[in-house]
Amino acid sequence: MININLIGAGNLAHHLFRGIYNSEGVKLQQWYSRDKKRLSAFSSKTGIIHDLKALQQADLTILAVSDDAIGELSSALPFDDQLVVHTSGSVSIHELDKKHRRGVFYPLQTFSKDVDVDFSHVPFCLEILEKEDLILLKKVCEAIGSPYYKINTEQRQTLHLAAVFVNNFTNQLYRIGHEITDIKNINFDILKPLILETAKKVQEVSPYMAQTGPAKRYDKK
Amino acid sequence: MININLIGAGNLAHHLFRGIYNSEGVKLQQWYSRDKKRLSAFSSKTGIIHDLKALQQADLTILAVSDDAIGELSSALPFDDQLVVHTSGSVSIHELDKKHRRGVFYPLQTFSKDVDVDFSHVPFCLEILEKEDLILLKKVCEAIGSPYYKINTEQRQTLHLAAVFVNNFTNQLYRIGHEITDIKNINFDILKPLILETAKKVQEVSPYMAQTGPAKRYDKK
Repeated sequence: MININLIGAGNLAHHLFRGIYNSEGVKLQQWYSRDKKRLSAFSSKTGIIHDLKALQQADLTILAVSDDAIGELSSALPFDDQLVVHTSGSVSIHELDKKHRRGVFYPLQTFSKDVDVDFSHVPFCLEILEKEDLILLKKVCEAIGSPYYKINTEQRQTLHLAAVFVNNFTNQLYRIGHEITDIKNINFDILKPLILETAKKVQEVSPYMAQTGPAKRYDKK
Repeated sequence: MININLIGAGNLAHHLFRGIYNSEGVKLQQWYSRDKKRLSAFSSKTGIIHDLKALQQADLTILAVSDDAIGELSSALPFDDQLVVHTSGSVSIHELDKKHRRGVFYPLQTFSKDVDVDFSHVPFCLEILEKEDLILLKKVCEAIGSPYYKINTEQRQTLHLAAVFVNNFTNQLYRIGHEITDIKNINFDILKPLILETAKKVQEVSPYMAQTGPAKRYDKK
């Protein structure tokens, strides 16, 4: 059994909680939130704490917090020489306090607040400094059913950039599509199957190839 | 039973053939291809012709041909006062020869050559000049299981433009994502679940709303 501490009470932390709680082989030992009002609903399911000093050693401590808080929080953990990972796409592994065994556990996915995550669709980018820590992180991914990839810092930051293109910028295109249809009082629903099919097509066919079909049809005039 | 003629032997025509062939209540009467080598594989399933003069009247004749060929082909049909529709997103209904009852039957979807289409995910944009023709086109959509929308020429051309944004330009973003990952020898597969989830999210949540989540995570630095 892999004991896990979870730090943070945001969107990602809630999804990680559910992923860990619903899986065999991993156990959420303690869950920390600074805000005393949060997480009380979960107190029957794991050890909720609001004081970092109450945090005990675990096989893995996951910092699911904002990028800016990673360094300070990792220093504030009341133990050392334990495996501590952050979940950011852009922060260096070296921003974690040196007193820990350090790692990165970056889920490359967009999370919706109220929609349960299927972790088989959440690839984790793993980075470690010591080999045996990779084994543990892989086991956690296997337990929650997620694919994983060993990715170094530079690659992770590159992926993060690529994610902005295929997620944020793509959503901007959807938004433009919506604005264009709004102008003529057209139901945006008409475009939704095309949006989904375009994303499905690139699952199978390289986007280098996929462009030819629709471009042929749409771009002629 | 609605008898249908199909004109054209391209990607869309093949998908329409399958949609009609596999559905109750609609029957493919004749299928025309200029090229004598094509469609021979289908001769046991419908009347394949290579000479337009052999085309007989039908309840509906669908021109699934390139935009440039619509006008000329509609004039060459050896009958008049029948319902003839084109399938283009950008061509005016008035480019069809006036001797026909005219309509537009525009499927707003991207089609892959070798992937069977689920017509329940192909919305048809319908335009007609006479009301009773709309009833027939709706019946065809219902028979093949497709949603349909009554869309005028201006709206259709607007939709066509919006489709370029959510399909072609989106695919360009996927391509950029692929290029970015290639540079650092990263497996593009890591991005695929994010691509799919981004498209799924906009099925439920307006893209005006959907942007906030990922932008919060990704755009900070």
